Amino acid sequence: MSHEPNDTIVALATAHGSAAIAVIRLSGPKALDIVESFFYSRAQKKKLLKDKTSHTAHFGLIIHQEVILDEVVVTLYKSPNTYTGQDSVEVSCHGSHFIQQQLLKLFLSAGARMAQPGEFTMRAFLNGKLDLSQAEAVADLIASNSAISHQVAMQQMRGGFSGKIKLLRENLIDFAALIELELDFSEEDVEFANRNDLKSLITKIITVIQKLVNSFDVGNVIKNGIPVAIVGKPNAGKSTLLNVLLEEDRAIVSDIPGTTRDTIEDEMTIDGVLFRFIDTAGLRTTSDIVEQIGVNKALEVIRKSAIVIYLFDSHAISCGDLKMEIELLKDHIGNSQLVLVANKIDAENDTDLKAEFSDYPEMVFISAKHQRNIEELKQKLVALFDTRTINATDTIVTNARHANSLRNAEKALIKVNDGLNANIAGDLLALDIRYALEELGSITGQVTNEDLLDSIFTRFCIGK
Amino acid sequence: MSHEPNDTIVALATAHGSAAIAVIRLSGPKALDIVESFFYSRAQKKKLLKDKTSHTAHFGLIIHQEVILDEVVVTLYKSPNTYTGQDSVEVSCHGSHFIQQQLLKLFLSAGARMAQPGEFTMRAFLNGKLDLSQAEAVADLIASNSAISHQVAMQQMRGGFSGKIKLLRENLIDFAALIELELDFSEEDVEFANRNDLKSLITKIITVIQKLVNSFDVGNVIKNGIPVAIVGKPNAGKSTLLNVLLEEDRAIVSDIPGTTRDTIEDEMTIDGVLFRFIDTAGLRTTSDIVEQIGVNKALEVIRKSAIVIYLFDSHAISCGDLKMEIELLKDHIGNSQLVLVANKIDAENDTDLKAEFSDYPEMVFISAKHQRNIEELKQKLVALFDTRTINATDTIVTNARHANSLRNAEKALIKVNDGLNANIAGDLLALDIRYALEELGSITGQVTNEDLLDSIFTRFCIGK
Repeated sequence: MSHEPNDTIVALATAHGSAAIAVIRLSGPKALDIVESFFYSRAQKKKLLKDKTSHTAHFGLIIHQEVILDEVVVTLYKSPNTYTGQDSVEVSCHGSHFIQQQLLKLFLSAGARMAQPGEFTMRAFLNGKLDLSQAEAVADLIASNSAISHQVAMQQMRGGFSGKIKLLRENLIDFAALIELELDFSEEDVEFANRNDLKSLITKIITVIQKLVNSFDVGNVIKNGIPVAIVGKPNAGKSTLLNVLLEEDRAIVSDIPGTTRDTIEDEMTIDGVLFRFIDTAGLRTTSDIVEQIGVNKALEVIRKSAIVIYLFDSHAISCGDLKMEIELLKDHIGNSQLVLVANKIDAENDTDLKAEFSDYPEMVFISAKHQRNIEELKQKLVALFDTRTINATDTIVTNARHANSLRNAEKALIKVNDGLNANIAGDLLALDIRYALEELGSITGQVTNEDLLDSIFTRFCIGK
Repeated sequence: MSHEPNDTIVALATAHGSAAIAVIRLSGPKALDIVESFFYSRAQKKKLLKDKTSHTAHFGLIIHQEVILDEVVVTLYKSPNTYTGQDSVEVSCHGSHFIQQQLLKLFLSAGARMAQPGEFTMRAFLNGKLDLSQAEAVADLIASNSAISHQVAMQQMRGGFSGKIKLLRENLIDFAALIELELDFSEEDVEFANRNDLKSLITKIITVIQKLVNSFDVGNVIKNGIPVAIVGKPNAGKSTLLNVLLEEDRAIVSDIPGTTRDTIEDEMTIDGVLFRFIDTAGLRTTSDIVEQIGVNKALEVIRKSAIVIYLFDSHAISCGDLKMEIELLKDHIGNSQLVLVANKIDAENDTDLKAEFSDYPEMVFISAKHQRNIEELKQKLVALFDTRTINATDTIVTNARHANSLRNAEKALIKVNDGLNANIAGDLLALDIRYALEELGSITGQVTNEDLLDSIFTRFCIGK
């Protein structure tokens, strides 16, 4: 990808497919020229754009070789107050694939270049409009599919996370400067940097970094959904339960006509929290986790889950047998949370069942078929997530790259700390401090390189 | 659908799916109020929209209950210079499904109503921004997938067709007025309307209408693509040929990265003309049209085609045998155009083959496998279409509703003509003239009713 943003890029910014409108976006020094050269009034007279004010919208025709390609609205964004920092134009056209393609071809023929994925946002970064972690949050925001993942991405895009990292880094830089100063005077054996102050600072920073690193466990779940497995014997009602859960979710979604969602089959959002059912296709058919407990695939599903729902037919099992099965299961679920769900309850046996399984006060009694107490089960799932005390306003690391840099910085600072305890020389300390600074700087893009930028921005969609 | 456009409607105007941006559109008296009530500056201070100029774009945050839903650009369009004629707002947000949904919910909660399909354009019609045939052309424009269908829709949207119909109608109205005047003086047996002038006018109008009605054959093909069947014996190379034709088309389309098309498998555009292969799924596998000539399904495919490509293995058949097969085929193809294609040619047998089949000078010699002369075949297909002398700047009827109204008007005017020849009374003439006027008026919406509007606009996509 070119990191010299002096040419003009163009891309479709809206989703593909036929719709009322589509938006084609241009950014670069020739953006206004290119669009202007094809822009005409309703009466087919040439319309000027460059003399118009920024942030204004203009109705007109796009005409090429006397053929009217479309009636459009052109919105001007003049440098520097634009998303990319460059002159930008948005052409809002009729949402036909044919028109989109013709307009793109036209702008390309006039000197624009097809934008690479994320190139608009990369320009925003290169022009200082966003730092790197904010830029990455833009992609997360677009991909966000629950209230929490949305809020975390929004907070990061608006600079919450960057602010925290920058603060850590500034504290370290001040100290690094003193240590480096000592090196200049190394013959004289002076200490400008108070070792006790440095130690307490390093300890403080390590604590903050550790908290951030730990938040990635949760952050990852927020971003990708909480993995849940529904396990149980055949005929326990696993597939009925899953369908009931998913269908309700879909029904809510389809409340708003026209927003038919690209359904990812086995995901659902409860109270803004995304749950993802792992490999339930297999579970839905014949495989029975408990019976196949030795089978690798089944174990894998359980291992990947943060929550394991153990569903059983409340008519078909005694409490004693259940206990044995749970013990067997517990050997395999590791740190996952286990939710016991008694299925196929009815009004008649409700009280008896609760007495029978009174050893398990947390057990949820449902009827998947008759959709009884499903809401209770859903609240249970949400509550399990809440017990991890997630607060979307906390700074939560959701990006594996950030988590990795934080871990590296942590390691370096632990070495600094050890070095301080062992009273090692300032130049060795300086080395590790510099390394930690670089790792922290790479998160916000204060320290960066072309490969890193490419690997980040190629993950974006084209047009952003 | 409500035809009282006094409430405020909202819809997603861009295609569904994840993308850089999405646009939510509002139209109605409360559009500005609704968006303004959630609109804040970057510093989270309330931003006013109503005092801003029309056609301006404003960056800001959408905040609800202290949660930032998105950073957006809000573009204002103030009545009357808007698409619908009403106050309108376009909110350009990040293209995440979650954000789209949240913003829609928010605007709905604040008093907007979800727009019905085509409701924005219906409001444009009701507010006199477009006539009915122009409004219908908007939907055609969005659906257009070839240069010709695009140009015909564009011309109709820009009023070319309406102008023609309105002119016909005005001529008739002048005469109708004179005839109606005669009725007022019917006791006195006067003739204000010169019968010869009327006759020549009616004849002229009928001619124009007939030309328009006839253009619908072509218009329908422009809109829906030219139906083509590739028939031939097993191993003639039908599926190879189809794949070669379609793949080339796709390669052209994918020239522009990022414009991956929602491929409709069996369509291709050659020189701006859309060709549609009918039921080729079946043809590609085992069925052999000629051998199954008695089978209904095969006959149906041929009957539906405007062009039948008869493909044969040039190594496997003599000219004599071919003649017999063609005779058999000709019994069934009706008005379709037959294109004879000799497949599997190579450099060695090229000349011999052309001699062998010299009775068929129009025959195309190709090698589907080695992609020889494919371009020649394509030009042949386009030429068949061209022989119908289509000119995108001609007025072409592409809409079945319009064709139907024109046919009804034509019938009525033929009755008027017959009546004039039989010297029948003015009141009977007036009846049929009025009927013709109504039919013509229904095309442009000068005469209309709620059912008609509903049936037209429900075919639109939501958001337009």
